[in-house]
Amino acid sequence: MNRSDAEALDAADPLAPLSGLFDLPDGVIYLDGNSLGALPRSAARRAREVIAEEWGSGLIRSWNTADWITLPHRVGDKIARLIGAGAGEVVVADSTSVNLYKVLATALGIAAADPSTAGRRVVLSERSNFPTDLYIAQGLCAERGFELRLIDPEEVAGRGDEAVVDVLDEVAVLLVTQVNYRTGRLLDMARITAAARDAGVLTIWDLCHSAGALPIDLRGVGADFAIGCGYKFLNGGPGAPAFVWVRPDLVDRAAQPLSGWMGHAAPFEMSPAYRPAAGIGRYASGTPGIIAMSILECGVDTLLAAEEYGGVPALRAKSLALTRIFADLVGERVAGAGFTVESPMDDALRGSQLSLSRAEGAFEIVAALIERGVIGDFRAGEPGVAASPDILRFGVTPLYTSYRDVWDAVDRLAEVMASGEWREPRFAARGAVT
Amino acid sequence: MNRSDAEALDAADPLAPLSGLFDLPDGVIYLDGNSLGALPRSAARRAREVIAEEWGSGLIRSWNTADWITLPHRVGDKIARLIGAGAGEVVVADSTSVNLYKVLATALGIAAADPSTAGRRVVLSERSNFPTDLYIAQGLCAERGFELRLIDPEEVAGRGDEAVVDVLDEVAVLLVTQVNYRTGRLLDMARITAAARDAGVLTIWDLCHSAGALPIDLRGVGADFAIGCGYKFLNGGPGAPAFVWVRPDLVDRAAQPLSGWMGHAAPFEMSPAYRPAAGIGRYASGTPGIIAMSILECGVDTLLAAEEYGGVPALRAKSLALTRIFADLVGERVAGAGFTVESPMDDALRGSQLSLSRAEGAFEIVAALIERGVIGDFRAGEPGVAASPDILRFGVTPLYTSYRDVWDAVDRLAEVMASGEWREPRFAARGAVT
Repeated sequence: MNRSDAEALDAADPLAPLSGLFDLPDGVIYLDGNSLGALPRSAARRAREVIAEEWGSGLIRSWNTADWITLPHRVGDKIARLIGAGAGEVVVADSTSVNLYKVLATALGIAAADPSTAGRRVVLSERSNFPTDLYIAQGLCAERGFELRLIDPEEVAGRGDEAVVDVLDEVAVLLVTQVNYRTGRLLDMARITAAARDAGVLTIWDLCHSAGALPIDLRGVGADFAIGCGYKFLNGGPGAPAFVWVRPDLVDRAAQPLSGWMGHAAPFEMSPAYRPAAGIGRYASGTPGIIAMSILECGVDTLLAAEEYGGVPALRAKSLALTRIFADLVGERVAGAGFTVESPMDDALRGSQLSLSRAEGAFEIVAALIERGVIGDFRAGEPGVAASPDILRFGVTPLYTSYRDVWDAVDRLAEVMASGEWREPRFAARGAVT
Repeated sequence: MNRSDAEALDAADPLAPLSGLFDLPDGVIYLDGNSLGALPRSAARRAREVIAEEWGSGLIRSWNTADWITLPHRVGDKIARLIGAGAGEVVVADSTSVNLYKVLATALGIAAADPSTAGRRVVLSERSNFPTDLYIAQGLCAERGFELRLIDPEEVAGRGDEAVVDVLDEVAVLLVTQVNYRTGRLLDMARITAAARDAGVLTIWDLCHSAGALPIDLRGVGADFAIGCGYKFLNGGPGAPAFVWVRPDLVDRAAQPLSGWMGHAAPFEMSPAYRPAAGIGRYASGTPGIIAMSILECGVDTLLAAEEYGGVPALRAKSLALTRIFADLVGERVAGAGFTVESPMDDALRGSQLSLSRAEGAFEIVAALIERGVIGDFRAGEPGVAASPDILRFGVTPLYTSYRDVWDAVDRLAEVMASGEWREPRFAARGAVT
């Protein structure tokens, strides 16, 4: 494959017009939409409108006149279309961490109240789950007398149903992220959810690295709870609000612990007694961040705009093609440079990123690529865990990543490796990289 | 007093230039900054910069290059200057509700671990505290085996020290809002905190209706915890992020329950084990909302800009003058129209608002005033509580409220009452008013 082959793929790509929905800086190949989605063109205009008109002119009246009060549900309904949830089942609120706290607390309460699971004291997750999930679970488990048990990703994924079922008998709640943030490994949500349900285990799916990138069918698989973030594939902006979904027949079974006024059945009664709203509304808590949520809506709208081009299935097909070509090009162009592809090459097991590892220099190579305009990121291996090497992470966002981007990125990687420039001392300084 | 007297007061007002920091719509007298602060002129430009440049061009790199990662502390340090806290003691995060959950959980944990207070099972608050505070406390108390006991505002305020001390012997934590959202009554933070401390009771101060409006000295009074919102007198925009302060010698005593990755001692180690950051950083939780927090910074900066005009003490003096003149004008201009001033007229007991009540028509009169360009708001009385009438609420924000605004507002109120227009059916339709 050469560069003109890549250009031919772009010319034939039905999704290509969608990249026009984004403002991407010249000279940059952006392969970090799995960490922070790019800026939708509509966001700046919408922000101006919300700030100058709705806030500035409308002032307090905009809670009604600009319909701020229903915004968390309106954006939630749009996200619902991307994750296989129904209208009225998703609310936008808080952060992923805070929403996980809400649903895990609810799940522990439901498990404890069910005679068939009341004796179970284990929350099961995987060792390489995104840290904030583990931190939140760790704190809540300690508080409620549960054990947070961490297993290897392979044990969660298993073969057939055996691996998961083997470990589920003491488990109250299974907390898993659909796509692993380091490797991009995709779990089989349908199979794992079914195995958990058969074992009487409630499931919480973290969709941070999958919502907006691949088809998700929460209702279809029979999941119990889901959370996810707004700033990755949903393109909602840095630290955008997060979302939460609860299976409709569970949602009214328990209140969530962050029982703020926006989750009240009638917040403006200003009653001193809490009475949770019916449905997902009870998972709202404090006053919603209107500006951020309005910008998130612009990001979600870029995904809904894809519906007339084949929607999420078309995005998924392109994403898989991009990562496959990426891996193939790495095999062709930087063979012998010491890279290992850490992402599964079975399409059924791969999210929307390609992760490479290398025995040394992963951080420096990412930094050298950034200097050359290719923005991926670095994720350190877990100290002392051989199965957790340092990672060079390249996310593809089929809304705006082109085949030529992938070709050029590997071309620059080949240049960085051939020149040895990544060994220059200026690339070794580490700051926070998110 | 006539209108030209008010204009003379404005001409002599050293703070008058500060209103130029805000974009206020023509033809509007805005008396609801206690619910949603007005738009700082700098906010639109700053939002454009954060969105187009930091997010759009900088993309993921801006976590470092635009210093997003320290933003919650940078804005926290600015808020600290307004509330008598030190640098490094305040962090901006989440909502007031969520932050209250964090500090109340911490406080309950500290009280339970202290042999001298371990047997105490009461969280004391006041019946008319802002509902979300009561809802959060209600949930957490139920979960942890505490009783949320609500007393009348007068009992908290007390005379001398007696009233508070009388009720404190079973109390682990006292949770109070410095300025009551309905009546504008200001509690004596120094006296109440001292009484609580003498009784071994931890104090949580909700500063939502006071931060940015009057002098606060958290360190000086020896408070234990404080929280507050960004969208009222801090002018941070609708649903702006909130802040949290913990007394420095308590902050490392316990982790808070929403142990997300941003509160980790080293988030980018991506370790599976939570280790709380030293200091107030542990009260951060999920990924911070960068756009909203940058806009909040513009709002806080309007208050810091007042420092060269006398700062918070000068704002406080003007605020008291505005509410006093407001009450005097109500007494002169709408005497006999059935209004009762619900805010204390003792300056030491009044926040930055004037609350009126009326046996009937409070909602409709507020609506009729809004139609005439005077924006205040309505707060329903608590059903069945005689001491809790329907309220017409008028906030003054000395940064941008003028003496003429107050004169004109009362003038319009006189017109509304003289014409009887508020009885027209169109004013009776109730939507959500926040």
